[in-house]
Amino acid sequence: MSGDDSTRAAIMDATFRALAKHGYADLTVQAIADEFEKSKSLIHYHYDSKADLMVAFLSHLLDEFIDEVEGGGPDDPRERLHRMAEIVVVGLGDDAATRDFHTALLGMRAQAPFEPDLQDQLVENDRLIRGVIADIVREGVESGEFREVDPERYAALFRSAIEGAQSHDVILGDAAPTDEAFAGIERYLIGDLLMASEDRPASSRSSDGADDGGA
Amino acid sequence: MSGDDSTRAAIMDATFRALAKHGYADLTVQAIADEFEKSKSLIHYHYDSKADLMVAFLSHLLDEFIDEVEGGGPDDPRERLHRMAEIVVVGLGDDAATRDFHTALLGMRAQAPFEPDLQDQLVENDRLIRGVIADIVREGVESGEFREVDPERYAALFRSAIEGAQSHDVILGDAAPTDEAFAGIERYLIGDLLMASEDRPASSRSSDGADDGGA
Repeated sequence: MSGDDSTRAAIMDATFRALAKHGYADLTVQAIADEFEKSKSLIHYHYDSKADLMVAFLSHLLDEFIDEVEGGGPDDPRERLHRMAEIVVVGLGDDAATRDFHTALLGMRAQAPFEPDLQDQLVENDRLIRGVIADIVREGVESGEFREVDPERYAALFRSAIEGAQSHDVILGDAAPTDEAFAGIERYLIGDLLMASEDRPASSRSSDGADDGGA
Repeated sequence: MSGDDSTRAAIMDATFRALAKHGYADLTVQAIADEFEKSKSLIHYHYDSKADLMVAFLSHLLDEFIDEVEGGGPDDPRERLHRMAEIVVVGLGDDAATRDFHTALLGMRAQAPFEPDLQDQLVENDRLIRGVIADIVREGVESGEFREVDPERYAALFRSAIEGAQSHDVILGDAAPTDEAFAGIERYLIGDLLMASEDRPASSRSSDGADDGGA
């Protein structure tokens, strides 16, 4: 990693901490500088404005997310969807910090209609994430692990469900039905809906089809 | 309707228009008064503060929503879920006005963690709406129209998916995959997932099960 790269990485980490602490509406470059070990002028050297920095941060988040889903994890398509849902809905680290960060993220998303650069980057993130979901589904269908579904349509649904559950966790706080929503995603969206016909429970198939060997 | 009731209804209508025009962050009682045909002092007479008014507005939205889903519409549980998804994701009226209103709604939701009264009312709305979804599912399972799913778990998933699709429409603007997400909800969440076993397509059942009469 070059010096510039490591500086940028440190700025991204500081941005993450500042966002979780202050929320998006109250975020200033000074608040980010307060979380940053080097000089504030280095932030200004790398990023022209708060908007520029936020766009870079969203792009950074996307890279991290894709790495988490794709890198070194399980190959199994069902496990990869599960992993993605877990990262988005439940988070990987400390619960309180995760909620603070998700709160800031929701605040940023709610501002997207008023900030075109932010919206453009969110559109880019959405396209890529849906593309990854669709690829996982396509692979599962081709290998016969999943039944035939339309990968793009399923991806739009899956992404709506995981983001909706994340947002509800923020909006409703401790009363949010997050565990139930996550269990629903696991059981129905990843489990039952994608189940190849040979895996379907007998109760949902013909009474004499339990040993037919599938489609 | 008493005079008070009709005044309250007119204030709710004015609040709807003001929210769609100004968004939640910039909403003032004056902006609502500007949309209201009677005196501003009547708003203050009925509601002590903006917070008080917003809580009443959320409760009003809930009533309207339940009326739209439950009142005079189809009895069929599949149709009722379809109707609910349509109202939330696509909206019933003018597209531009719907998006403006959804944008304001998302802004309000994103503020919930910072405004306990608002959050309490959103929690109440969420409980009631999930209750309605669960009741529809329970009814469909009992009548044999749906396969066996856990009504509460399915409700948490369904609500996450429809709200996630609505939020994405706001966040991503014209690039949002709203039609695809809605089609996914229709096809997979309402269609395939709830399909009673006798309705499942032959491709997902045993090859010799097409005429077995179902479970």
